[in-house]
Amino acid sequence: MKELPQEFKDIYFVQDGIPYFKTFLAGEWVSSQEFQDIKSPIDLTTFSKVVKLNSQVIDNALDIMYKRGKWDIRDTPGEKRIAIFQRTAELLERYKDYFIDILVLNNGKTRAAAEGEVRAAAERLKLAELDVRKIYGDYVPGDWSNESIEAEAIVKREPLGIVLAITPFNYPLFDVANKLVYSTIAGNAIIIKPASSTPIIAILFAKLLEMAGFPKRSISIITLPGNQMDKLVSDPRISVISFTGSTESGKEVIRSGGIKQYVMELGGGDPALVLSDADPEQTAPKITVGITSYSGQRCDSIKFIFAEEEVYDKLKDFLISELKKVKVGDPRDGSVTMGPLIDERTAEEVEYSVKDAINKGGKVLYGGNRNKNYIEPTLIEIEKDKLKDLYLYNKEVFASIAIFTKVKGIDEMIELSNSRRYGLDAAIFGEDINKIRKLTRMLEVGAIYINDYPKHGIGYFPFGGRKDSGVGREGIGYTIESVTAYKTIVYNYKGRGVWEYM
Amino acid sequence: MKELPQEFKDIYFVQDGIPYFKTFLAGEWVSSQEFQDIKSPIDLTTFSKVVKLNSQVIDNALDIMYKRGKWDIRDTPGEKRIAIFQRTAELLERYKDYFIDILVLNNGKTRAAAEGEVRAAAERLKLAELDVRKIYGDYVPGDWSNESIEAEAIVKREPLGIVLAITPFNYPLFDVANKLVYSTIAGNAIIIKPASSTPIIAILFAKLLEMAGFPKRSISIITLPGNQMDKLVSDPRISVISFTGSTESGKEVIRSGGIKQYVMELGGGDPALVLSDADPEQTAPKITVGITSYSGQRCDSIKFIFAEEEVYDKLKDFLISELKKVKVGDPRDGSVTMGPLIDERTAEEVEYSVKDAINKGGKVLYGGNRNKNYIEPTLIEIEKDKLKDLYLYNKEVFASIAIFTKVKGIDEMIELSNSRRYGLDAAIFGEDINKIRKLTRMLEVGAIYINDYPKHGIGYFPFGGRKDSGVGREGIGYTIESVTAYKTIVYNYKGRGVWEYM
Amino acid sequence: MKELPQEFKDIYFVQDGIPYFKTFLAGEWVSSQEFQDIKSPIDLTTFSKVVKLNSQVIDNALDIMYKRGKWDIRDTPGEKRIAIFQRTAELLERYKDYFIDILVLNNGKTRAAAEGEVRAAAERLKLAELDVRKIYGDYVPGDWSNESIEAEAIVKREPLGIVLAITPFNYPLFDVANKLVYSTIAGNAIIIKPASSTPIIAILFAKLLEMAGFPKRSISIITLPGNQMDKLVSDPRISVISFTGSTESGKEVIRSGGIKQYVMELGGGDPALVLSDADPEQTAPKITVGITSYSGQRCDSIKFIFAEEEVYDKLKDFLISELKKVKVGDPRDGSVTMGPLIDERTAEEVEYSVKDAINKGGKVLYGGNRNKNYIEPTLIEIEKDKLKDLYLYNKEVFASIAIFTKVKGIDEMIELSNSRRYGLDAAIFGEDINKIRKLTRMLEVGAIYINDYPKHGIGYFPFGGRKDSGVGREGIGYTIESVTAYKTIVYNYKGRGVWEYM
Amino acid sequence: MKELPQEFKDIYFVQDGIPYFKTFLAGEWVSSQEFQDIKSPIDLTTFSKVVKLNSQVIDNALDIMYKRGKWDIRDTPGEKRIAIFQRTAELLERYKDYFIDILVLNNGKTRAAAEGEVRAAAERLKLAELDVRKIYGDYVPGDWSNESIEAEAIVKREPLGIVLAITPFNYPLFDVANKLVYSTIAGNAIIIKPASSTPIIAILFAKLLEMAGFPKRSISIITLPGNQMDKLVSDPRISVISFTGSTESGKEVIRSGGIKQYVMELGGGDPALVLSDADPEQTAPKITVGITSYSGQRCDSIKFIFAEEEVYDKLKDFLISELKKVKVGDPRDGSVTMGPLIDERTAEEVEYSVKDAINKGGKVLYGGNRNKNYIEPTLIEIEKDKLKDLYLYNKEVFASIAIFTKVKGIDEMIELSNSRRYGLDAAIFGEDINKIRKLTRMLEVGAIYINDYPKHGIGYFPFGGRKDSGVGREGIGYTIESVTAYKTIVYNYKGRGVWEYM
Repeated sequence: MKELPQEFKDIYFVQDGIPYFKTFLAGEWVSSQEFQDIKSPIDLTTFSKVVKLNSQVIDNALDIMYKRGKWDIRDTPGEKRIAIFQRTAELLERYKDYFIDILVLNNGKTRAAAEGEVRAAAERLKLAELDVRKIYGDYVPGDWSNESIEAEAIVKREPLGIVLAITPFNYPLFDVANKLVYSTIAGNAIIIKPASSTPIIAILFAKLLEMAGFPKRSISIITLPGNQMDKLVSDPRISVISFTGSTESGKEVIRSGGIKQYVMELGGGDPALVLSDADPEQTAPKITVGITSYSGQRCDSIKFIFAEEEVYDKLKDFLISELKKVKVGDPRDGSVTMGPLIDERTAEEVEYSVKDAINKGGKVLYGGNRNKNYIEPTLIEIEKDKLKDLYLYNKEVFASIAIFTKVKGIDEMIELSNSRRYGLDAAIFGEDINKIRKLTRMLEVGAIYINDYPKHGIGYFPFGGRKDSGVGREGIGYTIESVTAYKTIVYNYKGRGVWEYM
Repeated sequence: MKELPQEFKDIYFVQDGIPYFKTFLAGEWVSSQEFQDIKSPIDLTTFSKVVKLNSQVIDNALDIMYKRGKWDIRDTPGEKRIAIFQRTAELLERYKDYFIDILVLNNGKTRAAAEGEVRAAAERLKLAELDVRKIYGDYVPGDWSNESIEAEAIVKREPLGIVLAITPFNYPLFDVANKLVYSTIAGNAIIIKPASSTPIIAILFAKLLEMAGFPKRSISIITLPGNQMDKLVSDPRISVISFTGSTESGKEVIRSGGIKQYVMELGGGDPALVLSDADPEQTAPKITVGITSYSGQRCDSIKFIFAEEEVYDKLKDFLISELKKVKVGDPRDGSVTMGPLIDERTAEEVEYSVKDAINKGGKVLYGGNRNKNYIEPTLIEIEKDKLKDLYLYNKEVFASIAIFTKVKGIDEMIELSNSRRYGLDAAIFGEDINKIRKLTRMLEVGAIYINDYPKHGIGYFPFGGRKDSGVGREGIGYTIESVTAYKTIVYNYKGRGVWEYM
Repeated sequence: MKELPQEFKDIYFVQDGIPYFKTFLAGEWVSSQEFQDIKSPIDLTTFSKVVKLNSQVIDNALDIMYKRGKWDIRDTPGEKRIAIFQRTAELLERYKDYFIDILVLNNGKTRAAAEGEVRAAAERLKLAELDVRKIYGDYVPGDWSNESIEAEAIVKREPLGIVLAITPFNYPLFDVANKLVYSTIAGNAIIIKPASSTPIIAILFAKLLEMAGFPKRSISIITLPGNQMDKLVSDPRISVISFTGSTESGKEVIRSGGIKQYVMELGGGDPALVLSDADPEQTAPKITVGITSYSGQRCDSIKFIFAEEEVYDKLKDFLISELKKVKVGDPRDGSVTMGPLIDERTAEEVEYSVKDAINKGGKVLYGGNRNKNYIEPTLIEIEKDKLKDLYLYNKEVFASIAIFTKVKGIDEMIELSNSRRYGLDAAIFGEDINKIRKLTRMLEVGAIYINDYPKHGIGYFPFGGRKDSGVGREGIGYTIESVTAYKTIVYNYKGRGVWEYM
Repeated sequence: MKELPQEFKDIYFVQDGIPYFKTFLAGEWVSSQEFQDIKSPIDLTTFSKVVKLNSQVIDNALDIMYKRGKWDIRDTPGEKRIAIFQRTAELLERYKDYFIDILVLNNGKTRAAAEGEVRAAAERLKLAELDVRKIYGDYVPGDWSNESIEAEAIVKREPLGIVLAITPFNYPLFDVANKLVYSTIAGNAIIIKPASSTPIIAILFAKLLEMAGFPKRSISIITLPGNQMDKLVSDPRISVISFTGSTESGKEVIRSGGIKQYVMELGGGDPALVLSDADPEQTAPKITVGITSYSGQRCDSIKFIFAEEEVYDKLKDFLISELKKVKVGDPRDGSVTMGPLIDERTAEEVEYSVKDAINKGGKVLYGGNRNKNYIEPTLIEIEKDKLKDLYLYNKEVFASIAIFTKVKGIDEMIELSNSRRYGLDAAIFGEDINKIRKLTRMLEVGAIYINDYPKHGIGYFPFGGRKDSGVGREGIGYTIESVTAYKTIVYNYKGRGVWEYM
């Protein structure tokens, strides 16, 4: 990785030619005896190390945050917090090359994808002001019920104290920035636990926040293996958990976490529903991006294409032709459009899924092969009555692989979409307002994209799942309700003669 | 208990002189071989029996509700649901004597308290229209972010399917009515699990709903011991749990429930904060009601009085004098103002708490004795530095017993209030706007009542706890967000030339 | 007209065989020496008389309302006002035959139309609860600007005092009920000035309100010719004017009224835009109702049909065939579907308009004749480049007459629709989401109905015009903002040490 | 005045040693043969000239704006408009010395006041993002009324086209910036008509907008005497008028304007109500600033002090002592805290008012003298029963002069405050929550400031008047509703089988 500029010197040291990163805990850059390896998916070699924290150190940081940090952030007036976010966005733009470098190296993103993520993080920081009005409260006159006459209330949104943000490997910068903005604009302190495989960028981001004047004791970056999180998750000093990751890990978090508020963005894999009046030529490229973007390692990636029979064959041709254009390889090569998977385990799962599909009657239309942790984008055709048996239908395989199935009418689309245990998004392609209206009513998902592939983006439009895909929503303004609680302040004037009604 | 009129004949039969109640499952009145005893706290004898369901019967009902009931309620237009609630309220008024009778007999409520609960349930049904506007959604233009230009979205609130409502013994009618209204006005089906000791009134209430035309397959009343609830709680066909009860049970519910939306109204016990400029004569009666109403078996009952030293002595005199006016006894006696506790176990816990308090330096100012499950309203004085050791400080004792402590200034009030693991409500008595403003900021509770004792009432003003007191809010309009999920419908018009911006 | 029941005896007396109606002023039923004739459009004969007020009497009533009536309504708690509206709705249902009778006799409505109006008025009264949440206010923390730090505000909606409601002849009951509900639910007193030709039903309605317990001094019904209204309109004791009527009268009202808040529902006449993919068979009956309902005497009646050429000819055939089904005649005859116009003057204007159209190149496709104040429903075809010259294009002719014009594409539809000085509503028939999206953006109107004729109905969805069609909106909840003003209450805590931020 | 930097060269030329300013009309810098003199109130001499437009030129500009400018602004995506405002704020900070110079010279502001105004204008531009969420619309399901079942609507806020902003002399920069932001962020084009005596700063501001990339055809600055505005005001191409100025001019504007939407910020002069428990030492300085800031030439300046008798005498002493600290003189002198009045006419009116007050029983406690257009800050004491006869009570004298009156209790405060024909703001000083609650209910004003003098500031909290003080509100977010109209888009799905309910 690129050598970092002078300003970042206190966050790491170099040993044996590779950088050893400290982390930031409630105002201090913390080192330790133990470090963990950080590998690049490009060649599966270690390019850096990150400090391994022990539970005592974490507990100390939590203590500082609970006693002081949660007040420091509240005592920073809102308009100053907005200004800090603006400065952080400017710093991010200034140092963006380093951030892009890490995203390519540690995540295997293409440069274009890495740039997109940095830009999204900066935009999210700048749009914090759009969250503000959602923090305002209500004035509730008591007149409208006999029991509350001559009283009135303010119902305001109050921060809950400390948010624990557990972030995934796939958007290691944007997701940290997003959870930071909505948690702290609402007045909470935040502990960020980045994915174990990709923690470096969160550490750099903490440095930017420090430079921008963010209240130091109101933030920590915890570097810890996921399986050692139970103690922290269950700590009563933490009031909110915002988790993005697998359904299985999410269930564990709630089991340990107990009485807390949760934002859970879990497993997905989305269906694309192609109506008979859709234009297959315009639709195929959008679906292809939905399948292959960041190698399909997105909860909102398209994993199923259900097309009405009138459009099925044409769409098939266009899809195969689009998939052929995808170039797989080392993402540092500018012509490559799809890089590796994050690890070999997932590539093996793809391999297994393909075999499973073939065994159950599926036919590989494109792709299907792997080389270490690199796979081809893969499209498998199967008949609708065999679909539900597939491993791919019942699990979320986090890779660029999708199923293509012919259906008769929208009721079949609804049935096939809703029978999965996930319910994150759906995409609809077509023009008929009646079919679209019915689909948008019946699909048990959190978001529906009409004539576009599902893209959560910066959360300008809120997103989040139903069923095993989670609870709560991420989205500008909309997450405020999950990281705050109403406080009701009732003023009783009964019998004081100062007020009648209204 | 009173004999029920003819219209209720299909919900029970009489054997050995006592009524055996069936229950209502997804459209059917269901009986069984097994029945459980229902006792009156007045004399601890069995006066009725209620059917004991097995898990197969419950699973069948759930299956019907999931496949049909959750659609039946959505297919009943909103305005018809409003009309059903109005009719139910009218029926409740028509049959109110039977409902009052059960509340006195099964709950040991005084007749006045029982009448109040019936009235509250009827008012809640009638005020369902005030929930409606909270079900409306947003229209979100895409113009305000670069990534969403030429798109727009509808963000609507959608019902989640089936709500499991677990209700406590203390408001066995109102709490059922309240959870029913907000769950079903928002378009969900509902399974109600009443407290095992007081299920009868929920069964009668289901009969009223049936008479009023409520969609039959959209409601079930489950009679089951709390410790057999795990299977139901963890069922993925249930999407929301609204639970009112103890913190300990609440934790178990979340542990089993996993990825669901929760409204958790848990343990409380509230502090009353009396400022130096409060009028002790007007304050004492309000605090006394806050301590003794329904024998203190309310999560919002006053359990602590923290008074500034300037007002402490006078307030003490008035409090004792008010407590003396409380008459304990058989609630069927019209002059009695405080009836029994629900069972002997709680009375024993009161006895234990009093001894514990005395051992640790407390002094009984009034009360302290028990007779079976009847206790005197009890006030114990203790110094502030001994307070935190008390059993009463660390647990929620569900009875009419409070602690009285002298403090210096509001910072001490804040410290003593916030150090408990509960954070439900607080009451403030006084006139000084500066002190009041600081207290309302600093207290870690869900609701604050100024110059009144805490009273959740019908939830006209929303209430709910912080910390171990729960998450989510109950309140007209405000609970809608907990029993629905946003559905985002994004319309993308990019490149279609039909729309530029705004 | 039917003899009224005993309960109404104090509101009128009979002389020379016809009823002479008093009116209700700030709590009193007022008679006078002078009465004006009320005629039936069925046969243009006088069937009743109504008291003519002088300005002194009106001034006295206004004085009582300003000093007491505007407080009486505010001192009636909101929940009691809701109850009064419910009772009024019940009374309206009890006496509906008398109201229907008047609507038929005085307005020339068919019995079906009259029943519809009574039902709408009752429903509006019952839905008052849906207005309530719009009366709640905001709690605005000061944190988000440097200048307001350590301050906070309540921004509430406060009634303005007295609303003057000037209502038209075409919905003499519903419009009075609607303006009454939104004005008084928001806490204002109200003066109602019904149309001079149809005041009786408003007087009867006031009697119902009195019976239902409406605060007496908070309402007056002013019977006065429109041309004597200047003094009242300009009175500074009146803070809001809600006017429904012609654009010309509306302009006069504002000129006299000066600094007041206005809801102005003025002239209209709506275009129906028929896209090439619309089904002409389903579309034609809807358009026909839009043209002929209440003889076209509705601001939201269809006056123009702009159809794409692909659908033009078929639509023409279906429209003519539908218009043939309309039976014109005495509305007391059950088989008649279209009654007379309100007076002969308008019928003459129709006659003139038809000649004008023919002279300018138009062709009568159906109708075009009149008999006194009865006209045939009339459809005229004209080419688009001649359209703008027509009298019918430049004026609002309040009758059942429409223009039919062929267009090429939606841009022509937009141009023809927006070039009129009115901008009330438009209807779109078709399925193409792209065309629909562009039309909804470009049309300069207040409301657009997709696949339906424009119908303001009870205002469940808000309506109101652009340009010469008015300002403000009528609609449940939405009019609250026009009849209240924000009151901002800023609490400044700077330097008091009681509050930092958030 | 300072010589402007090179970038501003195209907006003026120098002749006879003074600058002649052009103005900006729909994209062009326009000159003319005729120019009007611009004078400094410091010495009443001409220091600059500004182009005088004729009505043909204005009509041409309006034509361009109506046909293109109103679309140009809408076709600029919202996020780009936000960016333009940010850049304009940065430019304002870059060139602030020139702006301050003009405010001192043309308005007679002290340098501190001038800096404050520039800062406020920049902050308003930056806070435009807080307006955004108010532009979002509603999604209204049709389920809740029988008549709208199987339909649904989007109710969005749509720009109305062109806003005419008429601004006063006292905040010639901020008021222009404020009206510009809320009009154009909501998607309208804007015509600004600055006060005839102080138009230069608006012209400079237009230059900044041009430099920042504001759509050129969407803005004009009209330099025209107020008495030639009728034609423009009544033009139907203008849909909204936002006027700040005198009540008399405001009435004229509405009379000419007719059917438009109005924001009218008119005459004021505010009462300060001092309760018996207020601290006179802390209160007096705040009231003094409220009286003397910008020589009292503010609609929200304090003109009346009504004090309870317990605090009256002490307050009098402190007020006189504070007024003595005010130094009147040439505002270019850094030690001066109060500059001249804008013209001699107002100074004469002060002189007249003082004599009038003395004649009617008043006593001058401080000040009362004038020197040309410089006056002393003036405080006059009068008994409450003589107050209502005063010229100062019945008119708004726009200068630093206030009345001091002793009252008994808050009911007298209410009566004296509400009897004026104005109702802009009130200030309350004191601590008693009961008195404060009653006052905030009863005062017929738009805004109430507790423990602060009235300050509209940047409109973070919305402000605006009741009665003769105007209609509509200015305030971040809150004015959006006055410069937009709801557009209702109803989708009807009845009979299409695609949707049942909810």
